[in-house]
Amino acid sequence: MKTLSRLYYRIPFSETDAMAIVHHSNHARYLERGRIEFLRLAGLDYNQLIKRGMQYPVLELRTVFKKPLAFDEIILIETAIAGVTRARLDFSYKIFSVPELAVPSLTTEEFSGNPSVLGETFHCCVNPQGKPIGADADVVQNLNKLWGQA
Amino acid sequence: MKTLSRLYYRIPFSETDAMAIVHHSNHARYLERGRIEFLRLAGLDYNQLIKRGMQYPVLELRTVFKKPLAFDEIILIETAIAGVTRARLDFSYKIFSVPELAVPSLTTEEFSGNPSVLGETFHCCVNPQGKPIGADADVVQNLNKLWGQA
Amino acid sequence: MKTLSRLYYRIPFSETDAMAIVHHSNHARYLERGRIEFLRLAGLDYNQLIKRGMQYPVLELRTVFKKPLAFDEIILIETAIAGVTRARLDFSYKIFSVPELAVPSLTTEEFSGNPSVLGETFHCCVNPQGKPIGADADVVQNLNKLWGQA
Amino acid sequence: MKTLSRLYYRIPFSETDAMAIVHHSNHARYLERGRIEFLRLAGLDYNQLIKRGMQYPVLELRTVFKKPLAFDEIILIETAIAGVTRARLDFSYKIFSVPELAVPSLTTEEFSGNPSVLGETFHCCVNPQGKPIGADADVVQNLNKLWGQA
Repeated sequence: MKTLSRLYYRIPFSETDAMAIVHHSNHARYLERGRIEFLRLAGLDYNQLIKRGMQYPVLELRTVFKKPLAFDEIILIETAIAGVTRARLDFSYKIFSVPELAVPSLTTEEFSGNPSVLGETFHCCVNPQGKPIGADADVVQNLNKLWGQA
Repeated sequence: MKTLSRLYYRIPFSETDAMAIVHHSNHARYLERGRIEFLRLAGLDYNQLIKRGMQYPVLELRTVFKKPLAFDEIILIETAIAGVTRARLDFSYKIFSVPELAVPSLTTEEFSGNPSVLGETFHCCVNPQGKPIGADADVVQNLNKLWGQA
Repeated sequence: MKTLSRLYYRIPFSETDAMAIVHHSNHARYLERGRIEFLRLAGLDYNQLIKRGMQYPVLELRTVFKKPLAFDEIILIETAIAGVTRARLDFSYKIFSVPELAVPSLTTEEFSGNPSVLGETFHCCVNPQGKPIGADADVVQNLNKLWGQA
Repeated sequence: MKTLSRLYYRIPFSETDAMAIVHHSNHARYLERGRIEFLRLAGLDYNQLIKRGMQYPVLELRTVFKKPLAFDEIILIETAIAGVTRARLDFSYKIFSVPELAVPSLTTEEFSGNPSVLGETFHCCVNPQGKPIGADADVVQNLNKLWGQA
């Protein structure tokens, strides 16, 4: 069964634009925050991965903006794995505008409600020189467990 | 025949990240710079469009990262229309890493070389309250001319 | 007695730069997050202030960088009032790198430790047209209470 | 005689905020763009400095906001040295809102007009491990020439 990570985030004034909504470039940063939390849930501290010589740059990003986000709103960023091999790692995301923080922090059930934003990111694993490599077996195993394929 | 706008941009230090490459969230901002220039070429000053009650928020964003961009590089952002109706406006983009500024600033031919980044954005036209509207006829006509459909 | 607001924040990858530390432009955004929380503590929701016709743009910003901040660190942003009149509002800030979240969320005592960053911002009150105005009496009274002058 | 570098920059939509002006955190990035150009004028490519083992992190930043900047405006960033030793390097800046690009690109005379923003940054020279060092003699000499002290 697929596992979701949940991260709450309050929208700062600095991420709004002259339309008085969150500028669409910031959502990639929200997805990244969600992804880092997901890795932490999987027992994978991203700083430790970097020290071990593995990084996951973004190959492709897709974001669908369904409802605008506004200053001071609390958003919930749900992150799940969309695919993982030794060479690749893909994530899918839903961002919800939530009224409060009273939602459980980890679950296998999605938040009920209409997402404001949908996202997908596609990554490969690279070494410190930026060359594609296969991730260590324990990393892939940990990710597989949360993907629900292990 | 489709028209391209060309915008040069020097990568600032502030847009790099700890991998010493441009953080992938900044590319959406490069596409936006390209888009604003494209509209200017079409005789459409974005500030004027806003004053006339038309804005083009992003409905969807796709970016493909083929080669990383680095600090102090000069990039060329090529923008073209991918589709236009009264309700919708879609753009496609190519970002090239270029050695110098000696490329003509407007042409119907693409820069020869492998793009570092590919992008697509999908927009609708909204009024100041954020409600979808049809753009004024002269706006669509100007865009159609550069799309090569007029 | 002066009151401090405390806000915790985890440093995202997107706010690092090619020196592998937080880019110095982001600290102004951390101060702003601290300031918005301080206002909330004072019973002043910034969105409500905007609706009531009062905004506090930054007239001057000073930041002293004592120790660099790194990716995934948790920082504590302490905010206090440095001065308030009907026309003006000034804040001072300390940012600490903290090992955990176990610090009380509101107190009149400063966090013990050496701050990584010191900040000051100076603001005036303006109306929606950007003209300097005097803030409403209840706003100044609420701020005065946390400043310790009431 | 002191030398100024001049850099023109068009304000993108992404750097505005919900007050429909440039968010005050972005000005530090404009100063940085000005500083990198100044170094280039001094014959010092910042990438080359990094390769030679010298970097100039910001110790302190001060910005005074006199007039707000708006979307699509062209600004002129004037940068000058405020002080230089082997250990330290300080800059002062003026940002002007300008109607066109017809101003000479380098001069010892300031742009006539009222600056929208004043800035100062204070730097030390560090090695790749972040330890303070003395800059190489040729670097200091080049900077001194533009400071007008050589």
